[in-house]
Amino acid sequence: MEYSIGIDIGGSKIAAGIIDRNGEPATKKVFSTPQGTRDSILLLLENIIFSLTETANFENKQLIGIGIGTAGQIDFYNGKVLSGTPNIRDWNDVAIKDILSEKTNLPIFLDNDVNVIALAEQQLGAGKNIDDLICLALGTGVGGGVISGGNMMRGAWGGGTELGHIVVDMNGPACNCGFNGCLETYASGTGIARMMREKILANHRAEYNGLAYFKHHPNEITSKHVFNFMLAGNEDAAEVVDQAIRALSYAIVSLIHTFNPSIVLLAGGVLQDGEWFIEKVRSKVASLGIQSLVKPVEIRAAQLGVDAGLIGAAMQSWVYRNNQKFSFDRS
Amino acid sequence: MEYSIGIDIGGSKIAAGIIDRNGEPATKKVFSTPQGTRDSILLLLENIIFSLTETANFENKQLIGIGIGTAGQIDFYNGKVLSGTPNIRDWNDVAIKDILSEKTNLPIFLDNDVNVIALAEQQLGAGKNIDDLICLALGTGVGGGVISGGNMMRGAWGGGTELGHIVVDMNGPACNCGFNGCLETYASGTGIARMMREKILANHRAEYNGLAYFKHHPNEITSKHVFNFMLAGNEDAAEVVDQAIRALSYAIVSLIHTFNPSIVLLAGGVLQDGEWFIEKVRSKVASLGIQSLVKPVEIRAAQLGVDAGLIGAAMQSWVYRNNQKFSFDRS
Repeated sequence: MEYSIGIDIGGSKIAAGIIDRNGEPATKKVFSTPQGTRDSILLLLENIIFSLTETANFENKQLIGIGIGTAGQIDFYNGKVLSGTPNIRDWNDVAIKDILSEKTNLPIFLDNDVNVIALAEQQLGAGKNIDDLICLALGTGVGGGVISGGNMMRGAWGGGTELGHIVVDMNGPACNCGFNGCLETYASGTGIARMMREKILANHRAEYNGLAYFKHHPNEITSKHVFNFMLAGNEDAAEVVDQAIRALSYAIVSLIHTFNPSIVLLAGGVLQDGEWFIEKVRSKVASLGIQSLVKPVEIRAAQLGVDAGLIGAAMQSWVYRNNQKFSFDRS
Repeated sequence: MEYSIGIDIGGSKIAAGIIDRNGEPATKKVFSTPQGTRDSILLLLENIIFSLTETANFENKQLIGIGIGTAGQIDFYNGKVLSGTPNIRDWNDVAIKDILSEKTNLPIFLDNDVNVIALAEQQLGAGKNIDDLICLALGTGVGGGVISGGNMMRGAWGGGTELGHIVVDMNGPACNCGFNGCLETYASGTGIARMMREKILANHRAEYNGLAYFKHHPNEITSKHVFNFMLAGNEDAAEVVDQAIRALSYAIVSLIHTFNPSIVLLAGGVLQDGEWFIEKVRSKVASLGIQSLVKPVEIRAAQLGVDAGLIGAAMQSWVYRNNQKFSFDRS
């Protein structure tokens, strides 16, 4: 049986494992992301690869490659982080593939964290065997991955599908990406918290102890608080969640008009356990847009949960091997 | 030398020709689009194919295929118009490839009118040899075509890249597609005329004879009038053009974030001879969005003009032959 090393590099932790073709981890380890310079992260990656390779050898497991997922804009073809995320220090212009290739003979694949989630879901999860799907990950920010015609949509150097940064309102609030009115300013954890903060600061009443507290500590509001207030009946919170769902639905319809997908997958922490959230998105999306395109599209929750990034990272070793052009290998 | 029959089906005319690999027409004919049922159009298509095939035989020209472009949502894989344009009567659910295949042995390719313009420009025009480009055609409506990773972006059944119908303002005006705040409601000929009409009807002054006339004949306003009034110094017209450019720029930035293209091509009658228009779009786009993605993108005018549709239709015979998966044949 063949195995792949998967590594999922996040702002707070790095998950790594030896994964089989069915996404089952034979070994899995989680580390805190080093908070120093890139060198401290690269050193940890080297150690992870060394140790997992040793483990695989000892257990007589055949490794076929190393797949890595990380936030930021990735030059997939050259295995390089071009511009990373503010959540990982010093994570710009890092030639991961070149650097790690000096330490291993295994092929190395590097992709954006949401692209690998989309890949995991398409290989093993809610989008299994579907050639045209869009994956939106709603977390601190909003990330996107698109599989179109059976291949990952990448663009000129792999910087595409920054789907959190498509406009839904050209008169909308500034986004830290340099644009304004982006999907992310409404439907991310940060965006939901911002909208609630604005409402609380503008509201002179304080119906709930919690809201009164946040009036004095506005920066402590998270999207989780907003959902809890909504569930407790707070109207401001309900309006904020409605606005997030509305913006998300407009973005999804635009993306359906753009990509003509069969399914749209929603992933990420903002969803919580919220099938109700997805049901509201479904119902809003169904009321909008070009019906021949919108109607056949299923909107589903991603299935693979917190391990999706790790599994998708590892899957790269199979789908891209024997394939110079990086279209999927279906063998 | 090899030739392809190209046919460009528009609302008012149908252009057809025998085209060589360099896009040169050996023969070109233009017909009025029959205003009856689909059968009258299909009969004309049969006659065109019969007559051009005879001509090619007589002149000893080797035909390798027939490529057709038409407005509407096209099932490229099955050569079928799914839902056409209101500008062509009875143009829904027409299995063009099946119907015409009974009359010819040549392979037939059918695609959306803007996809074939994008293809023409990528093969022979302003996007020559560029693997990642977006083409926006600003006419009565706004159409889009995207070549990504060297292949036409199609989606599940070829209905993708309805780029006139991505949202730029979720609080914006209704679009006849069923959505609202679409790019098309601002940057199409129809959208520009609508915005001007609203301004004229709301404005009690009438600085220009032309504006006074249109106050009584609001439905006669066209985008060409708006550009002329703007050039004559009318402030309302200048605001309308600014709004069109602003919406177009927001849409282009969203599309750059989505597709990571190398170039964006602007085509269509709304541009007139307007390099000044494109220059304004360039300058607005440059001020927005994620700089690593936006900065390297060139925004260019399409080069092939009114024949782009005809040429691109014909090019299909070369780029898709020997290619079951309809990715481009580069031989």
